[in-house]
Amino acid sequence: MSEPLSVDLNCDLGESFGAYRMGNDEQILPFVTSANIACGFHAGDPGVMRKTVQLCLQHGVAIGAHPGLPDLVGFGRRNMAVSAEEVYDMVVYQIGALQAFVQAEGSTLHHVKPHGALYNMAATDIKLAEAIAEAVYKVNPETLLYGLAGSELIKAAKRLQLVAANEVFADRTYQQDGTLTSRREPDALISDPDQAAGQVLRMVREGKVQSQQGVNVGIQADTVCIHGDGPHALTFARHIHETLQREGIALARPNVQRP
Amino acid sequence: MSEPLSVDLNCDLGESFGAYRMGNDEQILPFVTSANIACGFHAGDPGVMRKTVQLCLQHGVAIGAHPGLPDLVGFGRRNMAVSAEEVYDMVVYQIGALQAFVQAEGSTLHHVKPHGALYNMAATDIKLAEAIAEAVYKVNPETLLYGLAGSELIKAAKRLQLVAANEVFADRTYQQDGTLTSRREPDALISDPDQAAGQVLRMVREGKVQSQQGVNVGIQADTVCIHGDGPHALTFARHIHETLQREGIALARPNVQRP
Amino acid sequence: MSEPLSVDLNCDLGESFGAYRMGNDEQILPFVTSANIACGFHAGDPGVMRKTVQLCLQHGVAIGAHPGLPDLVGFGRRNMAVSAEEVYDMVVYQIGALQAFVQAEGSTLHHVKPHGALYNMAATDIKLAEAIAEAVYKVNPETLLYGLAGSELIKAAKRLQLVAANEVFADRTYQQDGTLTSRREPDALISDPDQAAGQVLRMVREGKVQSQQGVNVGIQADTVCIHGDGPHALTFARHIHETLQREGIALARPNVQRP
Amino acid sequence: MSEPLSVDLNCDLGESFGAYRMGNDEQILPFVTSANIACGFHAGDPGVMRKTVQLCLQHGVAIGAHPGLPDLVGFGRRNMAVSAEEVYDMVVYQIGALQAFVQAEGSTLHHVKPHGALYNMAATDIKLAEAIAEAVYKVNPETLLYGLAGSELIKAAKRLQLVAANEVFADRTYQQDGTLTSRREPDALISDPDQAAGQVLRMVREGKVQSQQGVNVGIQADTVCIHGDGPHALTFARHIHETLQREGIALARPNVQRP
Repeated sequence: MSEPLSVDLNCDLGESFGAYRMGNDEQILPFVTSANIACGFHAGDPGVMRKTVQLCLQHGVAIGAHPGLPDLVGFGRRNMAVSAEEVYDMVVYQIGALQAFVQAEGSTLHHVKPHGALYNMAATDIKLAEAIAEAVYKVNPETLLYGLAGSELIKAAKRLQLVAANEVFADRTYQQDGTLTSRREPDALISDPDQAAGQVLRMVREGKVQSQQGVNVGIQADTVCIHGDGPHALTFARHIHETLQREGIALARPNVQRP
Repeated sequence: MSEPLSVDLNCDLGESFGAYRMGNDEQILPFVTSANIACGFHAGDPGVMRKTVQLCLQHGVAIGAHPGLPDLVGFGRRNMAVSAEEVYDMVVYQIGALQAFVQAEGSTLHHVKPHGALYNMAATDIKLAEAIAEAVYKVNPETLLYGLAGSELIKAAKRLQLVAANEVFADRTYQQDGTLTSRREPDALISDPDQAAGQVLRMVREGKVQSQQGVNVGIQADTVCIHGDGPHALTFARHIHETLQREGIALARPNVQRP
Repeated sequence: MSEPLSVDLNCDLGESFGAYRMGNDEQILPFVTSANIACGFHAGDPGVMRKTVQLCLQHGVAIGAHPGLPDLVGFGRRNMAVSAEEVYDMVVYQIGALQAFVQAEGSTLHHVKPHGALYNMAATDIKLAEAIAEAVYKVNPETLLYGLAGSELIKAAKRLQLVAANEVFADRTYQQDGTLTSRREPDALISDPDQAAGQVLRMVREGKVQSQQGVNVGIQADTVCIHGDGPHALTFARHIHETLQREGIALARPNVQRP
Repeated sequence: MSEPLSVDLNCDLGESFGAYRMGNDEQILPFVTSANIACGFHAGDPGVMRKTVQLCLQHGVAIGAHPGLPDLVGFGRRNMAVSAEEVYDMVVYQIGALQAFVQAEGSTLHHVKPHGALYNMAATDIKLAEAIAEAVYKVNPETLLYGLAGSELIKAAKRLQLVAANEVFADRTYQQDGTLTSRREPDALISDPDQAAGQVLRMVREGKVQSQQGVNVGIQADTVCIHGDGPHALTFARHIHETLQREGIALARPNVQRP
């Protein structure tokens, strides 16, 4: 569906909170084309949100809301037995909070990408996926929804005629069924920048990824997740950015159409 | 500035939180023309916000955001040494959160009224008043701003060409300088419904209120605060509502013009 | 293990928070012999904790800590994917917070009973059960631990030589395997006070309960959970209290020995 | 009151929260003799508290509770209009939470030092000072209370026969009345390690500090606050530590007697 020679690079930003600093937002921004900004539930606070929105606008980076579970101490990474209604409500709330900062700066919200445990749960749980898609749709049906490539979240978005962007990972390995290898497995992460860039290149050009089982798996790559934190994040981001440019892949917001 | 024979009756709603119930939202709604809905900082949660927005729309009541200080355990009633920048950020955030629920239900946000300690501080602190007015203005300059009649918040709103609604109180006594008698004073509250209704009637008709010092004070009454909680809230609300109707005062959203 | 003709009646108390009131603590206290006081994570705040401790001491009721998951908006009722280490830490923290109020009033903490989702998870998850038991043990090995009768929590407590009190329910039905009927089932709750009191009486006297499948199941009843909230709570509490007294069952703190 | 040739060096530790890191706890520990551990209200979480307690015990550093205002996003640095009763309750709660981790590791709580805005308010507000002293006293009258040298908090502690430790600062300048120069003034901070060490040395030996007005002011130095955060914290800590040792001042827990 997306043009083959263009891809979006996205990164989670605005994860600082109060006196606590996290991430290298200013350093990573030159390498990405869209950003997912934390909305205060798992990370971020109103001041951080405003400054991060301003920073993204300065860099011409598309702004997305990055809603999470109400679990600041757990950074939104712990699954919670939340109902579909609770998810709908918490996503509307967080989209709205970020949207107001974007409005106040004279711009518009580009997309929504759920965070951490909410992202993972929505990849497989149809009801939660539909709750998120409905929240995005009802606040503004023009907003894109980013989700794990081929996941229930992507399917739920398409059923509502939302523009859905399939997200792929540069530094994670894949299973035969197209899912990510669990982080509990020893071979879940790709630490070699060349291997990571090569995986992205192939996903974008051929729509395929080689699974850990050695089999090629079809995958739609509308947007690539770039990590902004950790010691090697900047090196990775730069390498993937440069590799794609050198290979003639345009870096731009997701080139996806309404279904 | 406002038409003499029309006044708005507003009430704080949506103050429940999680398993905790507060207020009699459904009972008070028939008596008011606008509602201020808590946004999750001092009270309210995403689910309560959605349900309260839906309830207001069913009753044709204008919906306002009711942002407060980040002090849930203190119900936003304790002054905090917050900076103007922090206030701007927390108000943008909370307006946005509520606005999203209003958007999701296909309506628009009508006004903003700060809550508790934030309301009181903004009545006299010019910098905080300006921070709130700017937050409202930058998110959407069409939104009304409710503040204590004649306060710094009203003045700050007018300087930004916002539509400002002067709020008066039915059940509070006034001082010679137009401020409310402190709740620490024994004669701060009016407990007689007739006296309360009479005070409102005179403020609306004559633009005057008799202060505790016996002197008449000029006051602009665009909107009257009706309390929704407490044992006598409904009796009071009904009595004021009926008295105004009987005396030919129209009950409607604030009839104020852009300065 | 416990004397057959004595049983403890316990109730969750101190669930108010800030301006929010919950429960009828003063009314229920005459009917119970021990209380579980919320510790600020799922309910309760420092002021509520102090007042509830004082109230319990006035009524001669044994004081227990009632630690919950860090989920105020969900009232600690939503399962969370917390690690055993996280559970150990949150339980030590909450026991300590309540213990300090008890110390400040010159008394000692009697027991610990986990709340809501934490209670349910610890009934079947051995690692979480052991984390809770270890937290109780390391803060003070003299403290009793209340858990679902026959559950993993009871077993974990006994392995650490803690005094464990098997908790039974007056108003819940049981399954053939000794577990509670899920609240999602239509016949989970007992609404007839006589039936509830009869079930308690038989559990205390005979150590048996009739399951929904019609089979008698062995059950140890050291303490009976009495609900303090809801319209019929007081009626139920009074009826169970009076029935047990009339039948010669002593109402007293759990009469259990160290294993 | 204290022996002239001995002084305590204290540092705020355990200020990380969830996924957020703050401070260099492991690096600063060799240079201090007591630590003030955040208790979860302005910083810290249960896991951080446990690990920090364990770290202090490994280094033989005396452990204190560092209670703060319930303002995580403001890091407890914003004054709040809290009542004396609220302060009493929040301090008991936080002492208890930390005390439980200390108990669980087989040790005892050594002292309490309020944090940030709470520390500053208690330096001049008699009622808040008394509320803190009473909280410490009622949980355990053997616990020391650290406060600004000569402040209302020290006086309140002494009235309750608590052991009070007068705290002085190495890197802050003083006014003629013995108070700290406000951080808003340009000359509030001392950035030269030699000057800082010299100031400490003189306060310990002579009980005097030269004020910004050039006048010598009497000051009791039982414990010196060492900052653990910021780029120069370790350099400063090491320099003060070494200077005091070289000059024959013993570094040890506050050598103060019950009044």
